[in-house]
Amino acid sequence: MAVEEGQWVLMATGRSPTNIAVIKYWGKRDEALILPVNDSISVTLDPGHLSATTSVAVSPSFPSDRMWLNGKEISLSGGRFQNCLREIRKRARDVEDEKKGIRINKEDWEKLHVHIASYNNFPTAAGLASSAAGFACLVFTLGKVMNVMEDYGELSSIARQGSGSACRSIYGGFVKWCMGKNNDGSDSIAVQLADEAHWNDLVIIIAVVSSKQKETSSTSGMRDSVETSPLLQYRAQTIVPNRVLKMEEAIKSRNFESFARLTCADSNQFHAVCMDTSSPIFYMNDTSHRIINLVEKWNQSEGTPQVAYTFDAGPNAVLIAPNRKNAALLLQKLLYCFPPQDHDLSSYMVGDKSILSDAGLNSMEDVEALPAPAEMKTPNQKFKGDVSYFICSRLGAGPKVVTEETQALIDSVTGLPKEV
Amino acid sequence: MAVEEGQWVLMATGRSPTNIAVIKYWGKRDEALILPVNDSISVTLDPGHLSATTSVAVSPSFPSDRMWLNGKEISLSGGRFQNCLREIRKRARDVEDEKKGIRINKEDWEKLHVHIASYNNFPTAAGLASSAAGFACLVFTLGKVMNVMEDYGELSSIARQGSGSACRSIYGGFVKWCMGKNNDGSDSIAVQLADEAHWNDLVIIIAVVSSKQKETSSTSGMRDSVETSPLLQYRAQTIVPNRVLKMEEAIKSRNFESFARLTCADSNQFHAVCMDTSSPIFYMNDTSHRIINLVEKWNQSEGTPQVAYTFDAGPNAVLIAPNRKNAALLLQKLLYCFPPQDHDLSSYMVGDKSILSDAGLNSMEDVEALPAPAEMKTPNQKFKGDVSYFICSRLGAGPKVVTEETQALIDSVTGLPKEV
Repeated sequence: MAVEEGQWVLMATGRSPTNIAVIKYWGKRDEALILPVNDSISVTLDPGHLSATTSVAVSPSFPSDRMWLNGKEISLSGGRFQNCLREIRKRARDVEDEKKGIRINKEDWEKLHVHIASYNNFPTAAGLASSAAGFACLVFTLGKVMNVMEDYGELSSIARQGSGSACRSIYGGFVKWCMGKNNDGSDSIAVQLADEAHWNDLVIIIAVVSSKQKETSSTSGMRDSVETSPLLQYRAQTIVPNRVLKMEEAIKSRNFESFARLTCADSNQFHAVCMDTSSPIFYMNDTSHRIINLVEKWNQSEGTPQVAYTFDAGPNAVLIAPNRKNAALLLQKLLYCFPPQDHDLSSYMVGDKSILSDAGLNSMEDVEALPAPAEMKTPNQKFKGDVSYFICSRLGAGPKVVTEETQALIDSVTGLPKEV
Repeated sequence: MAVEEGQWVLMATGRSPTNIAVIKYWGKRDEALILPVNDSISVTLDPGHLSATTSVAVSPSFPSDRMWLNGKEISLSGGRFQNCLREIRKRARDVEDEKKGIRINKEDWEKLHVHIASYNNFPTAAGLASSAAGFACLVFTLGKVMNVMEDYGELSSIARQGSGSACRSIYGGFVKWCMGKNNDGSDSIAVQLADEAHWNDLVIIIAVVSSKQKETSSTSGMRDSVETSPLLQYRAQTIVPNRVLKMEEAIKSRNFESFARLTCADSNQFHAVCMDTSSPIFYMNDTSHRIINLVEKWNQSEGTPQVAYTFDAGPNAVLIAPNRKNAALLLQKLLYCFPPQDHDLSSYMVGDKSILSDAGLNSMEDVEALPAPAEMKTPNQKFKGDVSYFICSRLGAGPKVVTEETQALIDSVTGLPKEV
């Protein structure tokens, strides 16, 4: 049965995690194909806390491709969306849904249009790699609808053309984006180094930092760095390859000391390259610096890293603790310095709120009774309001199909986004 | 006549400028001799606005060497002071003061002790290279008292052993500190590239930025950078030598565009290396970043640099304008964003206050009537209180002997610091 005009709507829904790089990607060697100047390594975050959910619907009644992000229609005309749509369409196969009596032949996909609705379970503007989760989810879910059989490596390569770091969100756990050598980008793919079960003690606390500044987009920022920073190529060619090897070894052996030292050093070096750019790019602010100083002083006083920190293209701190004990100690220090502005502890901690109990923080009275961290030199300094909220999370799995109809973002009858 | 116990006091007073590097010194290859990992270039500031004044007195009645800094006695036991005293004493010559009937033979200097009083005409804690002016002045004035005949190159090499950047304060105008090759430091000296008259249109505005953070001392900071920053040696060996050549050319030809681009890029790269250090060092704060963004946006909107900025080991901005017109325009933008907290315009501008009239700012009403800079995207942002005050200055001359008795800091009868 060939595709004909009809009322049917075929749909799939997927959910993809976000990821945070511990060896940073900064700089493209090919802008159009999004090919990086160095390998990078990331951890995938629990999609229950930070993820994108995307529904892709197809129907012969759709006159054009359309997309809605967080309930608002956005244009699909950009090259990044078009690249992903084209590459997945190219690989589309026959699809048969016996229950609905739908059969789509491989060649029909060129004529069919899609409706895409996507939603992030965390603020898009918070600078938490929403585009990584978003493009990974778009490619994954388009692939499901169109019955694409290619392996995850190839999917990662397509997601890469939407947003570089999206290729790393195709897997859970620890992921490496191999820069590749080929000019066509065919070998610039992500591979999984270890799944999320390999090192499941790790606890991740994100401090969402209030920012008044308009930030430089990472796309234009890394273009400026490639064009103007004398340090960028040296970092990419001489420093990162060695760090990647050491980081792979640290992950393999669950060596937190090495993992933490590499993570912090590479975050700082990425921001150093940003500062070496003309015009210089400042993603971290005074609050970010204070969080780093707090962690560094603690780590120094213990003689070995208790917690790692890393910052992407924004002021938010991503803090990685080796276990819940250290995460709870960290939280005590953080809440001493950055108490909630509105005295509402519950909404100040998002994600795994149970970490508050681990830290003995069951009420605002507990927060107010916190002693100053012993290693702090000016213990009277508190910065209420400088952190918007915290997220407590952990490592998580890669993209998954969501089968519950209630979770779908598109109405299977109208083919339009559900009313929220 | 040999030196005998007696009541006489012989004294000299000198004044030395501070300097600000436009190609930065960051990292020693020899800690004891203070030998740098790269050449650096600085401008000497007008000693009328920023300088150290030092009186050195000698008397057979002094039982030991003593020093007072800004009226408070400080220890001379540190290696840096001892190096300067030893090196100057080694080169001391016969001194005869016929009026006072004093004759000191060369060999007497080993037995004679000195009293030193030094005073900075700007806040020591403001991070404005007070040690550069201070050690240059100490060496210069000790040399005058002890009739040292060595050339300024050799004096700079002695001042270097007190504080690295002090060697550049031995000259006025534009100064290069040649890193040298010898292990004994004998060729690590400063040379004058051009005197202050060579390019006398330049106007220097310093924003003294309020800071709550305790800063890392530059001595320990650069030690950490040398030991831990993978970018520092690459900068020192590969990037700086080329920049030094270009900067010398820019100064020679009074090419402000090139001068400004090199100055800003090198300041940013120095701070990049600080950030690449473990633990990372943050000398600039949000206010510093805002000043950079303000200048960068202006420069970009004009297509060519209107003003250069450079930051040393602290949050203060040193802004260099090619002429009074640009300095006045800069001041309008700065005072729009950073109005004085206490409504006292006169004490908000130190040094050459006449720049306020050039900018049409004769009262607080004029400041309040300032329009938002056209290139600003969020024109409603004002940061009252984030700048403590401004200093307007220019290029200046090297160390000078101060002959007026009233300017001496030591009482020529008691041999002790004058009551202030």
